[in-house]
Amino acid sequence: MMQSTYPLLNTINYPSDLRKLKECQLEQLCVELRQFLIDELSCNPGHFGSSLGVVELTVALHYVFETPHDRIVWDVGHQAYGHKILTGRRNVFKTNRKFNGISGFPSPKESQYDSFVAGHASTSISAGLGMSIADAMLGEKRQVIAVIGDGSLTGGLAFEGLNNASVSPNNLLIVLNDNNMSIDKNVGGLSQYLMEITTSRTYNRIRYKVYRAFEKIGLMNESKRKSLLRFSNSIKNLLIGGNQNIFESLSIRYFGQVDGHDVLQLVKILNDIKDFKGPKVLHIKTKKGKGFAPAENAATEWHAPGLFNKETGERIVNTTKGTKEPPLYQDVFGETLLELAKVNDKIVGVTPAMPTGCSMNILMKEMPDRAFDVGIAEGHAVTFSAGLAKEGLLPFCNVYSSFMQRAYDQVIHDVALQNLNVVFCLDRAGLVGADGPTHHGNFDLAYFRVVPNLTIASPINEEELRNMMYTAQLPNKGPFVIRYPRGNGVLVDWQTPMKELPIGKGVCLKEGKDIAVLSIGNIGNTVAKAIELLGSDSKKVAHYDMRFLKPIDEEMLHDIASKFKKVITVENGTIKGGLGSAVLEFFADNNYLLSVTRLGLPDEFIQHGSNDELFKMLRLDDQGIAQSLRLLV
Amino acid sequence: MMQSTYPLLNTINYPSDLRKLKECQLEQLCVELRQFLIDELSCNPGHFGSSLGVVELTVALHYVFETPHDRIVWDVGHQAYGHKILTGRRNVFKTNRKFNGISGFPSPKESQYDSFVAGHASTSISAGLGMSIADAMLGEKRQVIAVIGDGSLTGGLAFEGLNNASVSPNNLLIVLNDNNMSIDKNVGGLSQYLMEITTSRTYNRIRYKVYRAFEKIGLMNESKRKSLLRFSNSIKNLLIGGNQNIFESLSIRYFGQVDGHDVLQLVKILNDIKDFKGPKVLHIKTKKGKGFAPAENAATEWHAPGLFNKETGERIVNTTKGTKEPPLYQDVFGETLLELAKVNDKIVGVTPAMPTGCSMNILMKEMPDRAFDVGIAEGHAVTFSAGLAKEGLLPFCNVYSSFMQRAYDQVIHDVALQNLNVVFCLDRAGLVGADGPTHHGNFDLAYFRVVPNLTIASPINEEELRNMMYTAQLPNKGPFVIRYPRGNGVLVDWQTPMKELPIGKGVCLKEGKDIAVLSIGNIGNTVAKAIELLGSDSKKVAHYDMRFLKPIDEEMLHDIASKFKKVITVENGTIKGGLGSAVLEFFADNNYLLSVTRLGLPDEFIQHGSNDELFKMLRLDDQGIAQSLRLLV
Repeated sequence: MMQSTYPLLNTINYPSDLRKLKECQLEQLCVELRQFLIDELSCNPGHFGSSLGVVELTVALHYVFETPHDRIVWDVGHQAYGHKILTGRRNVFKTNRKFNGISGFPSPKESQYDSFVAGHASTSISAGLGMSIADAMLGEKRQVIAVIGDGSLTGGLAFEGLNNASVSPNNLLIVLNDNNMSIDKNVGGLSQYLMEITTSRTYNRIRYKVYRAFEKIGLMNESKRKSLLRFSNSIKNLLIGGNQNIFESLSIRYFGQVDGHDVLQLVKILNDIKDFKGPKVLHIKTKKGKGFAPAENAATEWHAPGLFNKETGERIVNTTKGTKEPPLYQDVFGETLLELAKVNDKIVGVTPAMPTGCSMNILMKEMPDRAFDVGIAEGHAVTFSAGLAKEGLLPFCNVYSSFMQRAYDQVIHDVALQNLNVVFCLDRAGLVGADGPTHHGNFDLAYFRVVPNLTIASPINEEELRNMMYTAQLPNKGPFVIRYPRGNGVLVDWQTPMKELPIGKGVCLKEGKDIAVLSIGNIGNTVAKAIELLGSDSKKVAHYDMRFLKPIDEEMLHDIASKFKKVITVENGTIKGGLGSAVLEFFADNNYLLSVTRLGLPDEFIQHGSNDELFKMLRLDDQGIAQSLRLLV
Repeated sequence: MMQSTYPLLNTINYPSDLRKLKECQLEQLCVELRQFLIDELSCNPGHFGSSLGVVELTVALHYVFETPHDRIVWDVGHQAYGHKILTGRRNVFKTNRKFNGISGFPSPKESQYDSFVAGHASTSISAGLGMSIADAMLGEKRQVIAVIGDGSLTGGLAFEGLNNASVSPNNLLIVLNDNNMSIDKNVGGLSQYLMEITTSRTYNRIRYKVYRAFEKIGLMNESKRKSLLRFSNSIKNLLIGGNQNIFESLSIRYFGQVDGHDVLQLVKILNDIKDFKGPKVLHIKTKKGKGFAPAENAATEWHAPGLFNKETGERIVNTTKGTKEPPLYQDVFGETLLELAKVNDKIVGVTPAMPTGCSMNILMKEMPDRAFDVGIAEGHAVTFSAGLAKEGLLPFCNVYSSFMQRAYDQVIHDVALQNLNVVFCLDRAGLVGADGPTHHGNFDLAYFRVVPNLTIASPINEEELRNMMYTAQLPNKGPFVIRYPRGNGVLVDWQTPMKELPIGKGVCLKEGKDIAVLSIGNIGNTVAKAIELLGSDSKKVAHYDMRFLKPIDEEMLHDIASKFKKVITVENGTIKGGLGSAVLEFFADNNYLLSVTRLGLPDEFIQHGSNDELFKMLRLDDQGIAQSLRLLV
């Protein structure tokens, strides 16, 4: 009798099945899809609240549009679980985010229904616009729908996309999924467009006719057109006057607000507007966690809650009764930042929309005026930090490693070039597990090593993280990068007194006489285990924790070069350009001819799975590293 | 009688002198300052139109504000010549942009009046906001003024800054210098605020009182505050109704428009609004090239015109009569793109606001529908290209090397991860000469080598550039980077038939038996000259043009390793992580123990000057490279 739980959902293998339903069946389908999500996610953790919030939208989109011929571009993508379930992946959904299972984000490799990769925020408008314009140029009759949350809309890239949306002919539909997490009811003050849809239709037709007419008679040239379309909406003012919202200012037709949990209304309006020419926004109101009371009431906690009891709503926290566990690195960061901020009144915190994820909420709670959440806006987070530092404050700017790729120029141009005292804390550096290739922080060691003036450090454990943070906030240390991984540290008693570390100095963790292993960061703990696995051979192996990638410990490297013939470098980062390359460069520049074996992440996008599984696959677990060592001893 | 040309200007060594003038003298000062700029720039080339456009603003700002205690943050910064002249650098202005002279951009190293570095666009609001908030926190009574052009406002970073401008207490004044190059008179349709200044004052006072009152009685908490301030201005709607512009939607007070060439009016309004609490925008209208008719009429050409006759307005083009010169690389790109686009109808061009600078205007003119200028928005340029490619077009996305740092994540996340067929053409790679450290393209080889799936090529001459472009547009080549320098190539007859190059294959340019020189890109020509300088020793030296950094030519490297004991790598890019490191990595991974000498740009921000001077200083001219070779032969 398994089928009875989802009688209708079980008949939907693909959207073509969905489109055979009668409209009156859609509400039932939404109920079942929502229940399926709750059932599955209670035992297979994943992103929860966002997918519950777009159940109706997902059903309506696939009902109205001819997917996969029409394209849905999900921004960020963690809200696409319902979409996956309706597009051929219901039966494999239990493998979501698991090693060799389906991805927790849209992945074109996985399905033709996933029309564009997602993971980072604010990309859907630019990508969807490109797709829509390409379709127009290629003569494809195709609808492109970008679904973007109000949070993602704070990213500059989204604005750049909006700003270009009217420049070239396209029919992009932007669904603004406003779940009240960043835009509250005040947005409602802007307009009441839904009821004015008829008016809007007339108005919009007129506007586009005027525009095309201007073009035909030569009143509209390229530069005028762009200027007109970018920053003004004066034709509308000329025609009807009245209020404009931010979208209309950018010459994008605006429809809304619509109740995003009324599937029939969504179907109706999508049908209404889908053939309108030109770019348009449909603004829908949804509730994160809709349909599951605990999640509705605490959206942040239920963004990705882990395991939970679906009956009681109790989250199941894996406690090892009585025994203390090593803390999350993010919590070490968060607690230590507060501790330092209490003593050094120049310290402030800056986070682009990740106060909970990076645990800056600890500082935020105690010293709300000393922490800045700037929204999803990594570039601004960095340049804003540069401004703070220029006037004498000491910002700790915490950005996930893979998101820091979005502020690369700001680090170079606004911070490093002026040698400003900004501390960049890169959380989620190296492999991040289940979030997969969009979120792995593979590249930071390599891309930051290139930048002049940066100090780059990575701690082997919580104590080193604390000491690095302490050191970074001492006077005039210049731009200082500290990168540390997702997940737990290795120490139970980690809240030890902090001390200054000498910049650019590593430490010998274990003596040995034949082989020197040089590691940086948390993977040094795996190296230590690997050396133990060698048994009696372990005494041949020395282990150095480099601590700093830049400046690298030249004195130590001279010493190593004079003592050893064989060197292995180990890093939780791409094999190209990171620690291994820095060591090779040093040896080459100093005319040492040594055998150097480099271990690190391969030069490819690495799939999702648990970090244990991934490190094993890549032979960077203790066994794998031991195997590499055995080849040399 | 020299003094008679600038009698008033000559008395102004610092803004403190300026502030002693009577208001009625300011117009005369503007006349003289403008004449000084015209006189100087006619014989010492630099950015011209933008500085002429802000003469009155510059005078007014320094007259009203207590610089350097108050901070002026110039966006992009090429409009700051007048500022430099009024702040202690009049007598050294003739060294502008010259080797060891003053920088063409604001540089805090150079003067305390240059409060923040500039060169890249759209940074001033974020930086100024940080400075203003820091001042408030530190109890400094200080005004911060960000001066941003309408063009810069299209960058997402500017939007992120605006979006955060009202979140924390600050008094940032944003001067929107609207010179009609991107925003035309339609912006005027938005509002007529200047005349409503009294109303605005009252209204603004009320709004802030209401806001603070809400906060006091607990109606305003952190999340509400942010939501409210970010996307709405509903208090205004509640109070007075009426139109809002994009700034007011973001809760930033708006004043404008003001005639930016009426210095007395500017002084009046700046005095009027400077003590208003909270962030505010002053929208001024200016004309690029104001006061010099030829520049007023052709702003793009006169952005940086080179030498010109200040009497006739004739631009002095350096022609070598009758002899053909090698073309600019940018023109080879532009002409070749058109040539390819005529044959391959999938090809389109994408440029972030640089159609003239990168010569994509050649395609744009002939095939306006096949080229997209997306404004200053590098991130969007890349993600938009990804969208175009996803649907089957083949975008050539041209971004200056140093600006590509702003789209690093978009290349990784939106293009490389999906292995899309986008061709990235990086103009101005390597040293760029007079524009200096903000514009040098030092880092691209190193930061892109890190990214999986990319093919990275760099041509030694025009013919190779054309062949690389031809190769990149063949089917399914995946993401393909071609980087080439600023300036002229080396061939006179460059428009040769194109042919496919084997991906990842280099070429031996010269045989030799003792030393192998491996170069990539245009600097290979310098290497060839250096080898010639060795005289009879030159036959000992082999020279390889690698062509591709990634994939690197492993067959060739095996061959080199088996034949040579000494290898030198040469690149016009940072010494860390680029070609030299790639070669070291290959040798290490394949157990070759060779002596490798790496030549490249040092790990520092390199000053401005002519490329000849800079390469000489860095010993990367022919003499310098020959010297390095002599140490080995």
